Amino acid sequence: MSERPGFEQLAFRAKELDGGDELAGKRAQFLLDDGVYLDGNSLGALPRSVPGHVEDVVRRQWGALKIRSWDESGWWTAPERIGDRIAPLVGAAAGQIVVGDSTSVNVFKALVGAVRLVDGARDEILVDATTFPTDGYIAESAARLTGRTLRAVTPGEVPAALSERTAAVLLNHVDYRTGRLHDLPSLTAAVHAAGAIAVWDLCHSAGALPVGLDEHGVDLAVGCTYKYLNGGPGSPAYLYVRGGLQDRFDSPLPGWNSHAEPFGMREAYEPAAGAPRGRVGTPDILSMLALEAALEVWDGVSVEAVRAKSLALTDFFLECVAAYVPEGRVESLTPVRHEERGSQVALRCEEAGEVMKRLIGRGVVGDFRRPDVLRFGFTPLYVGFADVERAARVLAEELR
Amino acid sequence: MSERPGFEQLAFRAKELDGGDELAGKRAQFLLDDGVYLDGNSLGALPRSVPGHVEDVVRRQWGALKIRSWDESGWWTAPERIGDRIAPLVGAAAGQIVVGDSTSVNVFKALVGAVRLVDGARDEILVDATTFPTDGYIAESAARLTGRTLRAVTPGEVPAALSERTAAVLLNHVDYRTGRLHDLPSLTAAVHAAGAIAVWDLCHSAGALPVGLDEHGVDLAVGCTYKYLNGGPGSPAYLYVRGGLQDRFDSPLPGWNSHAEPFGMREAYEPAAGAPRGRVGTPDILSMLALEAALEVWDGVSVEAVRAKSLALTDFFLECVAAYVPEGRVESLTPVRHEERGSQVALRCEEAGEVMKRLIGRGVVGDFRRPDVLRFGFTPLYVGFADVERAARVLAEELR
Repeated sequence: MSERPGFEQLAFRAKELDGGDELAGKRAQFLLDDGVYLDGNSLGALPRSVPGHVEDVVRRQWGALKIRSWDESGWWTAPERIGDRIAPLVGAAAGQIVVGDSTSVNVFKALVGAVRLVDGARDEILVDATTFPTDGYIAESAARLTGRTLRAVTPGEVPAALSERTAAVLLNHVDYRTGRLHDLPSLTAAVHAAGAIAVWDLCHSAGALPVGLDEHGVDLAVGCTYKYLNGGPGSPAYLYVRGGLQDRFDSPLPGWNSHAEPFGMREAYEPAAGAPRGRVGTPDILSMLALEAALEVWDGVSVEAVRAKSLALTDFFLECVAAYVPEGRVESLTPVRHEERGSQVALRCEEAGEVMKRLIGRGVVGDFRRPDVLRFGFTPLYVGFADVERAARVLAEELR
Repeated sequence: MSERPGFEQLAFRAKELDGGDELAGKRAQFLLDDGVYLDGNSLGALPRSVPGHVEDVVRRQWGALKIRSWDESGWWTAPERIGDRIAPLVGAAAGQIVVGDSTSVNVFKALVGAVRLVDGARDEILVDATTFPTDGYIAESAARLTGRTLRAVTPGEVPAALSERTAAVLLNHVDYRTGRLHDLPSLTAAVHAAGAIAVWDLCHSAGALPVGLDEHGVDLAVGCTYKYLNGGPGSPAYLYVRGGLQDRFDSPLPGWNSHAEPFGMREAYEPAAGAPRGRVGTPDILSMLALEAALEVWDGVSVEAVRAKSLALTDFFLECVAAYVPEGRVESLTPVRHEERGSQVALRCEEAGEVMKRLIGRGVVGDFRRPDVLRFGFTPLYVGFADVERAARVLAEELR
């Protein structure tokens, strides 16, 4: 035990690291209390730009301008406009992302759309067996409705499972439970080599690390906006359809908003060109424009800088936990290798539910995932190294 | 021309009618300017209860409580709780309506769910040929994905079109264009007599007239909340599944929110009992709670009183139009018979688009529906008889 660094040493290190943090100034753009919020991978904190903007949307745009706001306040085009604001954060050129609906609904659009892009003889959909459950449930529904078979395999098993039978593969960029980062470039390449379509769920990576959708030739992708993108509770999700596939993208939810001429009120459906083809019904304006205001915090931020800080934060947390927490009380499920780590740390711990309650009672907010996982998310825009040291210290105190 | 009532006579009548209006006090609960807003059938006006509530949701519930609000602020149960608030407005007992997603997405859930409730030999879906287009597009997708044939017929043709081949029928309670009210009780009975499932779209009736979902044995229904329910732009829609069918309702969008144990994170899908089975992904909290605040204006309001005033308003508008507008300049598409009239008046008019622009410029806001329709919606909670007289007068002046 004696060679472990002590509190003073790590507290000093935290101060040094915070001093050299080029993103440290971003924290002032969020409304935060004096606790340590490590649950931004579940619900991002409130950006200061949001409340005033929402008030304007409610009182002036809706209350005063009413129906005129569909044009005059840019409501109608918000799904594409906000999609274009998200695009650089996930490595996509403009015109390929549309915001709206929940992640689950977008998984459905993407997966049915994917199956329709390949030869009908491809009768199998592969889904990440370790996925956040909703992706699996929706994939099962997509398979059932398109007459395909669903097979669950771990991301590591995907290359061996691919065949001429594979229509599409649905994968998570970062595992919601363990925080493991999967190898998007090589898995996408393997899927393509098999002639199948790659669909990625970016919920736990967008806003935390580079994704490189265009660079790696991803076909379709979905993600939520209420985690690292700080869009607010249940803020609308997004759908990416690679530019080269848009003309052939055949949505299973062809609502009037995705019509080539939405106000033509035509009996026959004719899909819009480009990203709007992924729209469905009337966009949820309040939530959507709150998200738009929240995205202002990304002005001038490079995703590479976010990634560098994210890794430094999780490294430092693991170091503090190793130094402070009595041996054997926790076990990290999060990969040590940077190439395999997202922006969270998952610690297996006895009575994790109770432990997390006590942490929250002391102002250190993470979350509990059954049966025995303490999950801590590190959001580089507003979490600092002193927060990290404090969180590990409080955890250690509660586990002594 | 001489027997037509004149301005003074109708203005006096308006004053009398406003004086006897038991709902007149409700107007003060909305933020309105001095214009005449007759587009509440497209986007309802802003209830005064909304801005303060939304501010609390943003600043305190999200900003301060953050993730804790899922429990402590009742976010998680909002879809059912708000569904129960809407229920009495459409004649439904509690526990059958869930709020969330867009109308289009709910049409999809309802229609695929409907097909799955009947024998597979029933291979045809009937859809209202005069429907708002999105219902037709989504019905086409539902038919395609379930291997059924879609046939478009007018509501009047439905009884003759029903057969042992009919799986489900999707109808609009009120036609979005003409304002025609269809006979929900008798059409539902005819659908049932044929052994099929009745799905109703209530977008243009809920909040304007009695629907009687339970009384008339409707199977499934959907509706939006941003028209007569004043929930705000793109506020979430709702899905009604009759209690007796809930256990067999098999959603094509089985997201994690509809799981029997959503936080169990189980690999196998097991649907929740009751209304939550209609949920999909994470609910859109800002928009949803704005809607909840908006629904407070219905406290103490009887839908029957709303209906009586609605008919009085449209009667009076038609009377004023007949008195003021030069003969032959407009033709009403809205049925004269009360049993066939919703809460809007559609007037066919040459150069309707231009005429509507001029009306809006003079503070009388309706909308234009291609190719030649002026559409005026009458929302009994905040439109009065003097408004109606003024709208007709301004229309007449513009058409002289």
